[in-house]
Amino acid sequence: MKRIIAVCGSNAGDKNLSKEILKIAEEVGRLIAGKGGILLCGGLGGIMEAVARGAKEKGGITVGILPYDKSKANRYIDIPIETNLGFYRNYIIVNSADVIIGICGRWGTLNEISMAMALGKPVILISTSKGICELLSKKEILEYFEEKPYIVETPEEAVELAFKIK
Amino acid sequence: MKRIIAVCGSNAGDKNLSKEILKIAEEVGRLIAGKGGILLCGGLGGIMEAVARGAKEKGGITVGILPYDKSKANRYIDIPIETNLGFYRNYIIVNSADVIIGICGRWGTLNEISMAMALGKPVILISTSKGICELLSKKEILEYFEEKPYIVETPEEAVELAFKIK
Amino acid sequence: MKRIIAVCGSNAGDKNLSKEILKIAEEVGRLIAGKGGILLCGGLGGIMEAVARGAKEKGGITVGILPYDKSKANRYIDIPIETNLGFYRNYIIVNSADVIIGICGRWGTLNEISMAMALGKPVILISTSKGICELLSKKEILEYFEEKPYIVETPEEAVELAFKIK
Amino acid sequence: MKRIIAVCGSNAGDKNLSKEILKIAEEVGRLIAGKGGILLCGGLGGIMEAVARGAKEKGGITVGILPYDKSKANRYIDIPIETNLGFYRNYIIVNSADVIIGICGRWGTLNEISMAMALGKPVILISTSKGICELLSKKEILEYFEEKPYIVETPEEAVELAFKIK
Repeated sequence: MKRIIAVCGSNAGDKNLSKEILKIAEEVGRLIAGKGGILLCGGLGGIMEAVARGAKEKGGITVGILPYDKSKANRYIDIPIETNLGFYRNYIIVNSADVIIGICGRWGTLNEISMAMALGKPVILISTSKGICELLSKKEILEYFEEKPYIVETPEEAVELAFKIK
Repeated sequence: MKRIIAVCGSNAGDKNLSKEILKIAEEVGRLIAGKGGILLCGGLGGIMEAVARGAKEKGGITVGILPYDKSKANRYIDIPIETNLGFYRNYIIVNSADVIIGICGRWGTLNEISMAMALGKPVILISTSKGICELLSKKEILEYFEEKPYIVETPEEAVELAFKIK
Repeated sequence: MKRIIAVCGSNAGDKNLSKEILKIAEEVGRLIAGKGGILLCGGLGGIMEAVARGAKEKGGITVGILPYDKSKANRYIDIPIETNLGFYRNYIIVNSADVIIGICGRWGTLNEISMAMALGKPVILISTSKGICELLSKKEILEYFEEKPYIVETPEEAVELAFKIK
Repeated sequence: MKRIIAVCGSNAGDKNLSKEILKIAEEVGRLIAGKGGILLCGGLGGIMEAVARGAKEKGGITVGILPYDKSKANRYIDIPIETNLGFYRNYIIVNSADVIIGICGRWGTLNEISMAMALGKPVILISTSKGICELLSKKEILEYFEEKPYIVETPEEAVELAFKIK
């Protein structure tokens, strides 16, 4: 059974989304596809689009779990799942993944990461990608939580770990 | 965008599931894949397994929206979505499909068909497949409902219609 | 712990909703409240409004599990739960009830009844209330299903049974 | 229509749950009930039990949206809604509330707070209650987010604001 890796991160419109951060997402997508994983994401813009574009470059499979209308899916999504559940679809992304990688992100991404942590799913945050992934990587923040996410610095470390852990 | 067709029907264990009915499901799977559609189903046994087996025979893509543990997915499912939502996952199957085909079925399938009808999604029932699809094809039953499903007799008619309507 | 009884049935707009059928619903509401039960329903019009009106006449507690905006709740609902889940909210009604009573109904009610049956919840249908509750009370229909709902003819029988079973 | 106020916070077992913090929750419950609000919470232990106990002391109405089995509801819950949705039930709590008050909390509470923020619901955090509510009250954390929760220090401020805003 192929490994299913969810990538969670900012939608288009987040001011933190610089070229560098979108490149991180794209590289994560390429690496997931290169190792034969299935990419799961929220199917929209920003990080979701960049990671799916990367995955398709390498011929990977991309699944988008959409809040509503699937015509809103970015064009790199092979399989758009139109849940009609709004933000509630975050929970389906997290539940359906073997492991979750976080890139940048705001409240919505924090919602996905915290759900994954509450469920005991393995979570990998790329600390160099700004937003809440930078925030949750800080030692003084992590001290607030008993269960902690994995913190990495590069796409390579993130994807390697994503295929290794439990 | 590829057409997403949900096939709903009995899980393994339904006494109505004769060889003939499983063959109907398999043929539906073959025809969906042959026309380039994505097969969406509940991912478990019985009709769900037969239709996925048919689709894979023709190299199609199969998505299983599972109630819980994805290790329960039948072996013809490419992309198992582990929702952890139990029967509630029925709603995601129905919402995510462009059209729904019903084969045989008991209370669970009736739950999917009735949701699809309530949502105004196009539903096609194969009347020769016993169970609730036979039942809902009867004139005296259909009279009870203002909005009615499409009734067909063969896999060919079902899949042709599934690619044609709206 | 108070018994929670869900009443499922047609929304306003169903042509079957005669004065007689709304009176059945109202009486069911009165009887549930009279016996100290909590009424759970979909919170909208038609049967949902009539049953809640009956319950409030007798000082009962009424909970409405709404698809979206709680301003759409009928005025007899004490506690409007605004799920933002659309028809998915049917599942929550059914799961949260100790027992389900069906009155009249179309596809939406059939969706609730079939979900309850699939989950193994006790279901009581009032056969004299037309719609799918009349339909599912027919012997030739019931034969299609291994697990069967309870069939009664009056509000009194329905509510008495609802407090007695399991 | 009565104001529905969700209180989110740590379940029993959180080491941060000192007597002082449980007293904060109890006082919040008392104040909500005193002003005629309906208390919505997750229905379990810790903060959820303390706030419900406070509300019942003042004769308020308490609704518990439970992950699974309603026999797990604390004894101060009037209306236990057994969703069978696990942590997904967090979404229903947040959607159904007019306003959300956070007390202490770990990943699960962070999940509720972040969902509420993503949905644009008003969120009030009691900064003196430790856990993620203390964390999210810090200036250097709040800077990470464009939309910010309200930060207060006492139960009185929290409940007064909860009845005032939008």
